[in-house]
Amino acid sequence: MDYYGSQITKLIEQLASLPGIGGKSAQRLAFHIVNMPQEKVEQLAGAMVDAKKHICYCKECCTLTDQEICPICSNPVRDKKTIMVVESSRDLAAYEKTGKYDGVYHVLHGAISPLLGIGPGDIRLKELMQRLQGDVNEVIIATNSSLEGETTAMYISKLIKPTGIKVSRIASGVPVGGDLEYIDEVTLLRALEGRVEL
Amino acid sequence: MDYYGSQITKLIEQLASLPGIGGKSAQRLAFHIVNMPQEKVEQLAGAMVDAKKHICYCKECCTLTDQEICPICSNPVRDKKTIMVVESSRDLAAYEKTGKYDGVYHVLHGAISPLLGIGPGDIRLKELMQRLQGDVNEVIIATNSSLEGETTAMYISKLIKPTGIKVSRIASGVPVGGDLEYIDEVTLLRALEGRVEL
Repeated sequence: MDYYGSQITKLIEQLASLPGIGGKSAQRLAFHIVNMPQEKVEQLAGAMVDAKKHICYCKECCTLTDQEICPICSNPVRDKKTIMVVESSRDLAAYEKTGKYDGVYHVLHGAISPLLGIGPGDIRLKELMQRLQGDVNEVIIATNSSLEGETTAMYISKLIKPTGIKVSRIASGVPVGGDLEYIDEVTLLRALEGRVEL
Repeated sequence: MDYYGSQITKLIEQLASLPGIGGKSAQRLAFHIVNMPQEKVEQLAGAMVDAKKHICYCKECCTLTDQEICPICSNPVRDKKTIMVVESSRDLAAYEKTGKYDGVYHVLHGAISPLLGIGPGDIRLKELMQRLQGDVNEVIIATNSSLEGETTAMYISKLIKPTGIKVSRIASGVPVGGDLEYIDEVTLLRALEGRVEL
């Protein structure tokens, strides 16, 4: 169905193949793009190609970055002795936005999932264990609160315990501002189990 | 807040400036893009630049296209004597998707809006009137059912009436599948006024 001409149709198809962008949004974006000034379009297109070209994993924490060592690992103010283990670079970004964590990270790029055939060898665990040979005080496991995330957390804690390094897991419970009525039973039970004395 | 390195951050910012894409989606898209194969990224970037470079208005109907005459106007099967007037190329696409309209279009690129300072001279009305010099049987006004759309429809019908060409307006009423309970009063009244005998 080519009512615009092949080039616009091609752009719409390309945009629609991106995650979270349906046919209508792709059309809207395409029209926005063709109405943008030429140099803005070139900037956007260039940003994509550049980011892709320079993307790599940080040699320290394995996060996606365009530098050999990511901005967090190369920041001298960060506490290198505290490592937070996350599943993805986006989870790292989520914690960074809190602005309250001053340790460093380790990005696994996945979680152990027997169902999906993802084993311990498929995520960046070897790299984590290598880092623990250095001077590390604590490993905070911040994998997701899903079955895979929990499995991964258990697995990592068992790996690390023999080294004597402190291992902790972020708390699971009712989200702040959450209405008990709308929260699932598992979370409610977790919140109960994890109750703290006042 | 640069936790990824400047190039990824730049890409996220560029994506977030597009309509309907917030910070979180921009981040998600950026990570998707950097994880795409290099040639796919270049295809996407190229599609944007190409579409922008070749975009123009169809010399017949003023729709956005990348050809001198758009695929609809250059289709010999379409009935050139019936012209549907729409506000935007996206409205044209919406009618094309029905697959039941075999006339041609005229895209105004806007609607008369005294509030926004858009007058009859700011939309593609002159081009429409020029087309009516040719052999035209009917002009179907399919501007939106908003204040601006209705104003534009009234204005156009008054312009065309003296030429003797038939002018019609698409029906306004309750949408198919719409629940009367949730439909605004103005639409309900329109539906009542526009009732047809069974």
